[in-house]
Amino acid sequence: MAEILKLKSPADFIGKQGNGVISFGSGQPDLAPPKEAFEGIDLKRDLRYGLIQGELKLREALAREYAGSTAENFVITNGASEALDLIFRSWGKGAVPAGRQEKVLLPRPYYYSYPPIVEFAGMIPVYTDLVDGRIDLDDFKKKIKGCRAVLINSPSNPTGRVEAIETLREIEKMTQSLGVYVVSDEVYKDLIYERENYHINGDHVITVNSFSKTYCMCGVRVGYLWSADKKVVEDVCEMKTHTSMNTNLVGQDMAMSAMKAPKDFIAKQQKIWLERRDFIYKGLTELGFDLWKPEGAFYVLPKCKNAREFVTLLYQEFKVITYLGEWFGAPNNIRLSYALDIKQIEEGLSRMKQAMKKVNVI
Amino acid sequence: MAEILKLKSPADFIGKQGNGVISFGSGQPDLAPPKEAFEGIDLKRDLRYGLIQGELKLREALAREYAGSTAENFVITNGASEALDLIFRSWGKGAVPAGRQEKVLLPRPYYYSYPPIVEFAGMIPVYTDLVDGRIDLDDFKKKIKGCRAVLINSPSNPTGRVEAIETLREIEKMTQSLGVYVVSDEVYKDLIYERENYHINGDHVITVNSFSKTYCMCGVRVGYLWSADKKVVEDVCEMKTHTSMNTNLVGQDMAMSAMKAPKDFIAKQQKIWLERRDFIYKGLTELGFDLWKPEGAFYVLPKCKNAREFVTLLYQEFKVITYLGEWFGAPNNIRLSYALDIKQIEEGLSRMKQAMKKVNVI
Repeated sequence: MAEILKLKSPADFIGKQGNGVISFGSGQPDLAPPKEAFEGIDLKRDLRYGLIQGELKLREALAREYAGSTAENFVITNGASEALDLIFRSWGKGAVPAGRQEKVLLPRPYYYSYPPIVEFAGMIPVYTDLVDGRIDLDDFKKKIKGCRAVLINSPSNPTGRVEAIETLREIEKMTQSLGVYVVSDEVYKDLIYERENYHINGDHVITVNSFSKTYCMCGVRVGYLWSADKKVVEDVCEMKTHTSMNTNLVGQDMAMSAMKAPKDFIAKQQKIWLERRDFIYKGLTELGFDLWKPEGAFYVLPKCKNAREFVTLLYQEFKVITYLGEWFGAPNNIRLSYALDIKQIEEGLSRMKQAMKKVNVI
Repeated sequence: MAEILKLKSPADFIGKQGNGVISFGSGQPDLAPPKEAFEGIDLKRDLRYGLIQGELKLREALAREYAGSTAENFVITNGASEALDLIFRSWGKGAVPAGRQEKVLLPRPYYYSYPPIVEFAGMIPVYTDLVDGRIDLDDFKKKIKGCRAVLINSPSNPTGRVEAIETLREIEKMTQSLGVYVVSDEVYKDLIYERENYHINGDHVITVNSFSKTYCMCGVRVGYLWSADKKVVEDVCEMKTHTSMNTNLVGQDMAMSAMKAPKDFIAKQQKIWLERRDFIYKGLTELGFDLWKPEGAFYVLPKCKNAREFVTLLYQEFKVITYLGEWFGAPNNIRLSYALDIKQIEEGLSRMKQAMKKVNVI
């Protein structure tokens, strides 16, 4: 147990898979990309620098999926991570010389990279605590004042919750009237079990998305942002010119090809995720955990006493990877991804049951 | 001529090629990658997240090229740009909350992204002016004191100059004794016409490199950094975990394959660059320009009166793209890349000759 105090971040578990380890850790699909992703890719294409904003054809294909959009509304990035990073950096870059620091509102629990991304940009994260895993509009209204932006994530990693459409509409209106930007991280938009995604709209909205989760190609690193605000697009491209240039061209070609997959590719995936969700939700409930039933994405965030001790024990003695809720702003929880097949989930739950005899978690 | 005052950055010329335009602008090889880059690439590989630090096999291959190194000394990045960005950000991230701002020494003229990269990280660029295109050690010694790091670039974009090995050794020693980091951007290390590259060494050295120029694959976006300082490697990986995750996996596979090209691939390329260098140097000299003979990379930086007027005229009336020296900290110069075939260089020079009748540049 010497390592109990050492676990610092999800990075501590990177490369620890294999060798009988069951990983409820990393949030990425274990399923295969659509076969279309590999079709018609010509590696011997022109491999000189591409447009910083991204390949025109890919942006045109995306524009057909976003009503009222053109290719000019998109910037292709190295995954959703880079999109988020560039957005906040392009706002924050003036902050240091001018000595001002601007606030960004983050619902908590949050995806673990949000606070560092905001801070690296020289901005200050402020938090509104979710109630029962959803945005509390009263607290939201108080905290949003004086913020430059709010970053929302529905469906959410780590909560698995989906905000009600009325809440999203209310946020859309409220932020517009206050002149606050909404950055909407919708990387799980195709993984909602209950309804269609609601795409928040307006000149003050920036949507961040990715090919990683929908098309099971996280390692290809192709994401994008959408904005109706021309200045946002220009500022992000200006920043990206210096920090990474164009997004890798072969990955963009693969993303474009993946979009040719038949619509039922996504429906078939959803069916698999739904089965897994039901299985893990039932299993954890039977073990006595208190948790929300996920409405989207592929995460559960059960309450857990002695979380650090339990997560360490699970890994060291039972070869099961789980993440500390504290990395997501939820110190009394643990987070599990259910992006693994039902047999593995079953084995993982059975090991957890054994571990629960050694640590008091309920 | 209405646009004379509008040219703001090289980005103004992006996407303006074709249609008879001769571009001395963008700094990227027009030559083909080695055929090995395309061999054995399996797109249907595991496309889940890879290691943030980069694929182990690629880092092991690089370690064989850097004496005394192991895979642990490398981080694979989205081009050299991201490597530079991550290095400075990982230093600068503490700067804002603590209210301190650290200095970074930049030789001037500089690659145009250096000052913004330093500033975006919350650090302050200070400058040492090159004398005859080379580092002035007396001024360097004065300015380096109190700096966190110096960023050197030999062979240099935009000067085409290569620092003497004695100068590099002197910098190596001086910075070590002062505890100042040296970030050595060596993306043109395989494009030195006069001698082998000298790889600055020491625990305080971070080398930045790329597959873009050597293997003519800029758009694939694979670069890397080398450091003997474990903390530098860890801090960069920690930052990259939040800002872009792993570098695209297919690009890394292509980079690894490209390294299998026979050694004479580079020698053959050098021969082509040398011919072009001699051709453009002679041509510009005959036109009356005062310029340094490049010793590496593929840039010339001739002195030029009324540079803004000339660059605008060349583009608008003669369809020739050149870059303003002021973007590189050299307001009385223009910068030309000679990464184009001799016929095009010849045509470009002939158009410049015509344009010189309308603007006084010598």
